[in-house]
Amino acid sequence: MSKTNVDEKFLDKKITRRQMLKLTGVGVAGLAIGASGLGGVLSAFGEELFVDDDTTATNKVNFYGKHQSGIATAVQTNIYFAALNVLVNSKQELQELFKMWTPLAIRMMNGESISMEKQNDLIPPKDTGEAQGLDARNLSITFGVGLSLFEKQELGLASLKPAELKDLPHFPKDQLDEAYTGGDICIQACADDPQVAFHAVRNLVRAASGKVTIKWSQAGFNSFPVEKGKKQTPRNLFAFKDGTENPSGEKDMNEVVWVQPGESTSWMTSGTYLVVRRIQLHLETWDRTSLKEQEKTFGRHRESGAPLGKRNEFDGMEIERKDENGNYIVPENSHVFLAKQAKARIMRRSYSYSSGIIDSTGAYDAGLVFVSFQKDPEQFIKIQNALGRLDKLNEYITHRGSGVFACFPGVKKGSYIGEALFNTL
Amino acid sequence: MSKTNVDEKFLDKKITRRQMLKLTGVGVAGLAIGASGLGGVLSAFGEELFVDDDTTATNKVNFYGKHQSGIATAVQTNIYFAALNVLVNSKQELQELFKMWTPLAIRMMNGESISMEKQNDLIPPKDTGEAQGLDARNLSITFGVGLSLFEKQELGLASLKPAELKDLPHFPKDQLDEAYTGGDICIQACADDPQVAFHAVRNLVRAASGKVTIKWSQAGFNSFPVEKGKKQTPRNLFAFKDGTENPSGEKDMNEVVWVQPGESTSWMTSGTYLVVRRIQLHLETWDRTSLKEQEKTFGRHRESGAPLGKRNEFDGMEIERKDENGNYIVPENSHVFLAKQAKARIMRRSYSYSSGIIDSTGAYDAGLVFVSFQKDPEQFIKIQNALGRLDKLNEYITHRGSGVFACFPGVKKGSYIGEALFNTL
Repeated sequence: MSKTNVDEKFLDKKITRRQMLKLTGVGVAGLAIGASGLGGVLSAFGEELFVDDDTTATNKVNFYGKHQSGIATAVQTNIYFAALNVLVNSKQELQELFKMWTPLAIRMMNGESISMEKQNDLIPPKDTGEAQGLDARNLSITFGVGLSLFEKQELGLASLKPAELKDLPHFPKDQLDEAYTGGDICIQACADDPQVAFHAVRNLVRAASGKVTIKWSQAGFNSFPVEKGKKQTPRNLFAFKDGTENPSGEKDMNEVVWVQPGESTSWMTSGTYLVVRRIQLHLETWDRTSLKEQEKTFGRHRESGAPLGKRNEFDGMEIERKDENGNYIVPENSHVFLAKQAKARIMRRSYSYSSGIIDSTGAYDAGLVFVSFQKDPEQFIKIQNALGRLDKLNEYITHRGSGVFACFPGVKKGSYIGEALFNTL
Repeated sequence: MSKTNVDEKFLDKKITRRQMLKLTGVGVAGLAIGASGLGGVLSAFGEELFVDDDTTATNKVNFYGKHQSGIATAVQTNIYFAALNVLVNSKQELQELFKMWTPLAIRMMNGESISMEKQNDLIPPKDTGEAQGLDARNLSITFGVGLSLFEKQELGLASLKPAELKDLPHFPKDQLDEAYTGGDICIQACADDPQVAFHAVRNLVRAASGKVTIKWSQAGFNSFPVEKGKKQTPRNLFAFKDGTENPSGEKDMNEVVWVQPGESTSWMTSGTYLVVRRIQLHLETWDRTSLKEQEKTFGRHRESGAPLGKRNEFDGMEIERKDENGNYIVPENSHVFLAKQAKARIMRRSYSYSSGIIDSTGAYDAGLVFVSFQKDPEQFIKIQNALGRLDKLNEYITHRGSGVFACFPGVKKGSYIGEALFNTL
């Protein structure tokens, strides 16, 4: 993080671009304020230097903080995940892109239009407008950068590539489709509304017109049973609860998710790595399988979500339990048994998707937008390797898409998304 | 509707298949009760003859009534629309299919599992289970039949085809994709939850395994701004309010939507015709268009939804208004001006969709699952013809999919979906 010495009152004041021009006495053409000077953000698109979290906004997730939003944030009902390729030719242009995005992301997370300027109807609307009238709906926006970004010579980022950011190995039964794989940058927009999530990506991409293209994207959803006013663990399309064993609390998150000082390259401190997998669930095959087999496949009871042989969702898995014949109660080829062998933990933050029918087969194009966060993608790789060819779940799923992204640490007020990367020499 | 003379108490009593066998004294193999005799439903899948609307269920839309649900029902946040092809070889098998579906649809609209029988874990779960723990979420299920169904000689339905059920003509700028067009049967599942809507179609199709295949399907969503606790008209992905001018109230609905006695073939009385169009909205082009042009394209103001030159969404369109130079205030090539020339009305009940990226172009595969109901598809055709080549909106949209379906009247207790069709000689 850069040290900034900024008049806090100035930072707190929302100013229009017009006011700013008066203040600085320069014309639009001459507009340039060094990020190092103010530690600030000046966007050619947004009209303000700094935008605050609007803490009075309804259903608001905070933008500023030690970590990015959309990771420890309580999982929402909707995701729109986009993997972008960049068209910019220099590190500086890339830096400007993230600076430009910063106030836009904040505005949208405030439930506001991306621009507070009065709309001139002779030009295209600044905000595409479909989220107008909707509140923030707990929108979170998470930015990450992929391996391919560091491999672009013209960007000169090669020396900044974290050692942890590597292509995933080919796993048994992977059938990755290039149309759902990779990307230079990812934007994970999650909200309790599909239109708000889509709107966020659409407006960020539009504001970066000519600088990025969408390589692939996927919408997804979660449906939460509510008991006594409290959201319960959602079920995936195989009807099993997904996310029961996630880390929680600061200690857990620091152990599993947040990069600690010295654990990765310095600019990733307080950041994390995102793994996304577009996993087709073969619903037709699953639906022909007996309940017993289904439960033995996951290692849990379907209805309660409890470990096999136990009663309640949050009862301990205690994987070593055996029956009177000395056989494991949770089968050795079950998803959870094998995953436990990896001795690795991740934070799952997945959504379901249903995208119509696969034309050639008539099967549902439906499944899981699997998203996990971990301080090192190796944690995911370990688990996936432990599942290997043995995982009973393999019969019912195919991984069709994949991505690994280094997610920056959070943004301090007066800073911008990714500053740690750009400020590293 | 068939006349039935049924012991009301018997109808009201929920009985299990086992109890039923005792009552009737027959074995499973000999199980057959004529629909004409009991006017009843016996499903090989569901275990009950009749299922009631559970009027105590939370967020419940009624199944029984003069009209099917999902038409006059307040529009929900989510749709899963499926067009099916049938594999059955006789009218009787088709009739059995709709009988079998009836108690399943009711159960799901009650927010229940499709089966109340205790699950035997040695067989596949009767209900796929992903909606477990969620309430009814205002699920509505609307069934319709397409032209192709009446053209299947083996079904012997040719003489029952309503004259109104025809293929739509080719409209200017149509680029229909066979993968999103047609179907023998449609199921429109709408709910205030994407998983509940998907679950409904999945379980109906699964219960009809070997009898139907999904030809195409599309998920969609609506996001409702809420003002003073009241849902407002949702915006489409062009940010314009969609559905402002819908008919409302019984008189209006009888004029526009519900087939009145003598207006179509007799079995369609109290039914309606559904038109579905998968319309891609070219967001990238739209987003490069000035606000003024956008508003002139629709004929409405974007922010308020008001007719051009007016202030409020529900102000009268008064299409003949002219400015001081004698020019129409609402341009003659605007969407609404042209649509008004048709002198025809329809009930719009559309949803947005965002299904990733079109691989070949990198453009959003996003737009409108346009659904309209009308007592005659000719109403839709008239409007579409009036829009013709002139509609300014043509520049920004492409119709990619299409279907027309005759939606049965509603179901009376003791009857089943489509009985009017099957009871017509």
